Amino acid sequence: MKVHIDCFPCFLKQSIIALRLGTQDESVQERILKSILSEINIVDTSKPPAYATTFIHRKIRHLLGKDPFKNIKSEYNQIALKLYPELKNMIEESPDPLWTASRLAIAGNVIDFGIFTPHQNSGAGVTSVDIEGTIEKAIYNPLAVDDYILFRDDVAISDEILYLTDNAGEIVFDRLLIETLISLGKKVKAAVKGSPVINDSTMEDARESGLTEVCEVIDNSSDIVGTILEWTSPEFQEAFKNAQLVISKGQGNFETLIETGKKIFFLFQSKCDVVSKELGLSTGSMLLKKS
Amino acid sequence: MKVHIDCFPCFLKQSIIALRLGTQDESVQERILKSILSEINIVDTSKPPAYATTFIHRKIRHLLGKDPFKNIKSEYNQIALKLYPELKNMIEESPDPLWTASRLAIAGNVIDFGIFTPHQNSGAGVTSVDIEGTIEKAIYNPLAVDDYILFRDDVAISDEILYLTDNAGEIVFDRLLIETLISLGKKVKAAVKGSPVINDSTMEDARESGLTEVCEVIDNSSDIVGTILEWTSPEFQEAFKNAQLVISKGQGNFETLIETGKKIFFLFQSKCDVVSKELGLSTGSMLLKKS
Repeated sequence: MKVHIDCFPCFLKQSIIALRLGTQDESVQERILKSILSEINIVDTSKPPAYATTFIHRKIRHLLGKDPFKNIKSEYNQIALKLYPELKNMIEESPDPLWTASRLAIAGNVIDFGIFTPHQNSGAGVTSVDIEGTIEKAIYNPLAVDDYILFRDDVAISDEILYLTDNAGEIVFDRLLIETLISLGKKVKAAVKGSPVINDSTMEDARESGLTEVCEVIDNSSDIVGTILEWTSPEFQEAFKNAQLVISKGQGNFETLIETGKKIFFLFQSKCDVVSKELGLSTGSMLLKKS
Repeated sequence: MKVHIDCFPCFLKQSIIALRLGTQDESVQERILKSILSEINIVDTSKPPAYATTFIHRKIRHLLGKDPFKNIKSEYNQIALKLYPELKNMIEESPDPLWTASRLAIAGNVIDFGIFTPHQNSGAGVTSVDIEGTIEKAIYNPLAVDDYILFRDDVAISDEILYLTDNAGEIVFDRLLIETLISLGKKVKAAVKGSPVINDSTMEDARESGLTEVCEVIDNSSDIVGTILEWTSPEFQEAFKNAQLVISKGQGNFETLIETGKKIFFLFQSKCDVVSKELGLSTGSMLLKKS
């Protein structure tokens, strides 16, 4: 998985979303966006797009002097927490709680406001996400890639599971799947980012979503989009190495971990044309895919 | 009308379309796209986007060593010429030929493969345009801005009309409107670009479409997107100054001529979010708008 030229306009679109969340000052938005052009110019196109996105968003935070996603992440956690009781009930009443919880975890991945095109008339510059519609779709429609049987069987024979979270808001859905795994007798360790990057979950989101009360949560000590192992802490690397099974959420983790050789189940929605094309799928496809 | 930050990703998308038409070599595509990043960095955002697009496409042609749109322009002229007899008939049989011909001229503006996102699975990297569907839409649906009554009345009192063409393919639709104006006793002079830029019509397209056999065709001596008067030839400037009425096709001409103070009727589809937002319209709106 490498950077395609189609990623270049997308890098700018993502940057614009971040800039509009970070400042109302159009001259600042323009100045920072122009400096992102130089950043794209030196992108290593042999690496997954997540590398480039990491550098771009680091620069945006540096030039804005703040994390532009801070408020909206908290807002999305609150929205998802309101859904929690209903979703918990849906899982507990279903004939196969693991199946339902994994589908919901994929639905949760759609709550990603760092990638999609902003609405033209939205003040925040962020796409409204139809959460309830997405949940219905994830439950009632077939997945584009569905390795659930393998997932169920591998979960059955694994005692220790490492769970890589992706975005804020989504982390409430992750909590539901993790609670389901724990109810099946599994020991789960969840990982979040070490510091803010786009709308990815950090320890603050783990606390806000209640995840820290459910299982051990570690941070990977990095501000990387996805998981670039050599840039994570020794503690995280150790947890990754020792896990019998890894559950990985989101496209960024898929891009950066697909070639590690580890037994990983990737739960995500393919959100960009480039990744979807490489997978032979249409953009927006939902996947539960074994590495 | 000035450049917004939303134009930046769009500049890159347009460049990618041009590059894919110009070469199959992905390393060349990437190298040229990276040099376009520097070009965008020095864009004068106080000017209409057409200025930036002019410089970008000049650079692309220079670095490719050719006009990437040459073949596809000719292809679109041929497609439109096949429709000519049917459209001619439609105009001649209609109760108000000027109305029908002006609507068709607007429909013709949709044939623009320099702006829209390429289809994912299209080898050429170019959006397929539903020409017949567009024609039906232009005839049967109301326009977002419809100054036809003013247009008809101004045409009635004007003897000499300057007609600014836009794209190849579309120029066949322009020929139909120009023939209608001539049948009403008007003297029409048509203008094309002096040399290739995106898919804009040049003298070659005027010949290929049969327009040179219908009226006098002049070129504006420039390779500019839209019409930036100070960069056109004295001959073109004279024709512009002397025309009692100007008919202007396409968004580029609209962006660059809307503030000239001349009596102009703009016939076009608003193809981008930025221009559409400034006009208070949704993207894809069709207009017959008096200056």
